[in-house]
Amino acid sequence: MQKRFPSHRFIAEEAAAAGAKCVLTPSPTWIIDPIDGTCNFVHRFPTVAVSIGFAVNQELEFGVIYHCTEERLYTGRRGRGAFCNGQRLQVSGETDLSKALVLTEIGPKRDPATLKLFLSNMERLLHAKAHGVRVIGSSTLALCLLASGAADAYYQFGLHCWDLAAATVIIREAGGIVMDTSGGPLDLMSCRVVAAGTREMATLIAQALQTINYGRDDEK
Amino acid sequence: MQKRFPSHRFIAEEAAAAGAKCVLTPSPTWIIDPIDGTCNFVHRFPTVAVSIGFAVNQELEFGVIYHCTEERLYTGRRGRGAFCNGQRLQVSGETDLSKALVLTEIGPKRDPATLKLFLSNMERLLHAKAHGVRVIGSSTLALCLLASGAADAYYQFGLHCWDLAAATVIIREAGGIVMDTSGGPLDLMSCRVVAAGTREMATLIAQALQTINYGRDDEK
Repeated sequence: MQKRFPSHRFIAEEAAAAGAKCVLTPSPTWIIDPIDGTCNFVHRFPTVAVSIGFAVNQELEFGVIYHCTEERLYTGRRGRGAFCNGQRLQVSGETDLSKALVLTEIGPKRDPATLKLFLSNMERLLHAKAHGVRVIGSSTLALCLLASGAADAYYQFGLHCWDLAAATVIIREAGGIVMDTSGGPLDLMSCRVVAAGTREMATLIAQALQTINYGRDDEK
Repeated sequence: MQKRFPSHRFIAEEAAAAGAKCVLTPSPTWIIDPIDGTCNFVHRFPTVAVSIGFAVNQELEFGVIYHCTEERLYTGRRGRGAFCNGQRLQVSGETDLSKALVLTEIGPKRDPATLKLFLSNMERLLHAKAHGVRVIGSSTLALCLLASGAADAYYQFGLHCWDLAAATVIIREAGGIVMDTSGGPLDLMSCRVVAAGTREMATLIAQALQTINYGRDDEK
């Protein structure tokens, strides 16, 4: 791809792990996670995906996510809708937390203080009578389930721009909301997100959460 | 089925909810959950199964679990192995908790004391450096993933005999262990379980857990 598009930039999980900077410039940029759900992948747990997002002028243009084991291809293009294997996606219209299925992920940090915050956030949502909370081990596939209306909300601290880029286009094109955990606009590099089918639901989730600080992708 | 097998007994989630007693006698008994993952089903979250177990002389003889949305049929027959769509199942041989993917479910009680215990058990496993913890919303499918080697352990308080009956045969026939959370033999009516690919792993999990009291299926 670098040969075919010499002027394009690339942000990818494995390149970042090797020390490459994650900075989103106005240049056309591919934001790639070759294997999302790495822990699942290692265990042959069938929730593993490839995620490819594309941004120009710091705006997300399209996203493609492939759920390998189930052969499901999710796609979204700005202004053109979102699809799974050709079928149009539509988020849930739920606004009542007590009827909501909420997805989250544990995040990579496992020190006692971070775990306490993670569990305390889950406790807050269960106390607030969320209908169910699920942890499937893949941020991108959880976000695809949200886009398809199979879940009503998603939140996470400790994910990365390559988990979010493609899924953000897909959710928005399915009619959903992707925002910062503060309730403000999404910051792709902030390592945190709330997404939901409706703004009301996203706001309820954001208000319930305590922040877990994972730094920023563009400051690592 | 009652017409075809007039001497057989039936234990089923919906019958129990309507007040029928759940007592396992020596008579041939079908133990059925027509929809496992009811909350998922309501949300069209694609982790939903039908579970049918069969016991004679209080011994589980065979189990069939159908993962509806993915068209996967899991079967196990005592002494004859366990299969998914005809392919033989084999549990993981993992004995090291730090390499283990552990599955659990939140359980139906959501009062603050029960939630504290649920979250505290999850915290103990994450402190003990379990590689990952997943919550998929279906006990029977979580147990099928364990049987297929995609996860290394499963525990839950607050499940029922109809969640366990079929899966227990399938896991045992795939080479795995199904035991009580005390570390003793499984009691199908005790509303609690630890299952794992190896006895070492099951014992590690059982030792880490605090008990959550959900009573017994045969005393409700």
